[in-house]
Amino acid sequence: MNTKPDNKRQYVTTFPSDYTVIDIETTGLSAVNNEIIELSALKVRNDEVVEKFSTLIKPENTISSFISNLTGITNNMVEKAPKITEVLPEFTNFLKDDCILGHNVNFDIKFICANLKKHFNQDLPNDYTDTMKLSRKYCKFPSHKLSFLAEKFGISTQGHHRALNDCIMTYEIYKKIKQTASSEQLSMIS
Amino acid sequence: MNTKPDNKRQYVTTFPSDYTVIDIETTGLSAVNNEIIELSALKVRNDEVVEKFSTLIKPENTISSFISNLTGITNNMVEKAPKITEVLPEFTNFLKDDCILGHNVNFDIKFICANLKKHFNQDLPNDYTDTMKLSRKYCKFPSHKLSFLAEKFGISTQGHHRALNDCIMTYEIYKKIKQTASSEQLSMIS
Repeated sequence: MNTKPDNKRQYVTTFPSDYTVIDIETTGLSAVNNEIIELSALKVRNDEVVEKFSTLIKPENTISSFISNLTGITNNMVEKAPKITEVLPEFTNFLKDDCILGHNVNFDIKFICANLKKHFNQDLPNDYTDTMKLSRKYCKFPSHKLSFLAEKFGISTQGHHRALNDCIMTYEIYKKIKQTASSEQLSMIS
Repeated sequence: MNTKPDNKRQYVTTFPSDYTVIDIETTGLSAVNNEIIELSALKVRNDEVVEKFSTLIKPENTISSFISNLTGITNNMVEKAPKITEVLPEFTNFLKDDCILGHNVNFDIKFICANLKKHFNQDLPNDYTDTMKLSRKYCKFPSHKLSFLAEKFGISTQGHHRALNDCIMTYEIYKKIKQTASSEQLSMIS
């Protein structure tokens, strides 16, 4: 459980080296009407991945063929997967009070918060940072989509739209942007 | 925790569809003198991966350059990783009473048992099956090494000697051997 005293989630403007990358796959865009079908996370220390957490989740309603085509996640695959109520305690236990990193992470946070609220009447007060925001600030690219950034930085996009793969892409992109920002700052000093 | 009544680990001669694939990386070959530096597991239901667990582990002694070269795991990478005493309860909680699947899995079981015994005075009574044994029985190959089997079956060997990648290779090989065995039985019937 999170131990922050003020209990308010804040956007972090520095570049932490210890954080947890998260990504979810869902049955649609609405955090209220749609469900999480995959949740993955990477625990990072000194910018090195030390732990990985990933699970499919059995939704209450069926997964549409559109979503199965996008993600590769089918109704058959989640048939025996744990439910969101089983996954959330494991996830918050994994996350602890780490800073969250994600790509367009407000989407993921909204879904996780909606489910934490609904099933456990809990909040997610962890601070967070976002590779989409960071890319907009530090990279002069025409797009800031995850796959576009990965290709720009020479990072594999294999298995894109599966949560653990997207976490790894986000992590690799974060390190590249951190390097970019750091060399920009150095050039401003020198 | 395992709930088997007789508490004895047995080799499973059938082909289960629900199981947990495990793999470890270690600082050497001796379960007594060497340490686990990475432990990964895949929970499989209906032969589909539903959950993934993976963690680096900080050993008490340093990792040799031989092992770092083999695995890609360096002392720097494990510096802030959890210790084996933190990882084992998470692992047994993930595993529950699943059948274990591994490649030459007695090696992994020996290390895990030695650590469970040493730190928690616990046993690992889960049944198990082994792709190396299965390959010897069903595949007429000159080698039954993980990388050899992967290449024979057209499975990617990228990232071999990292525990999660090796779990995925083992899982894919298991499904191929299961197919082989199943078609052999069919041909014996017809």
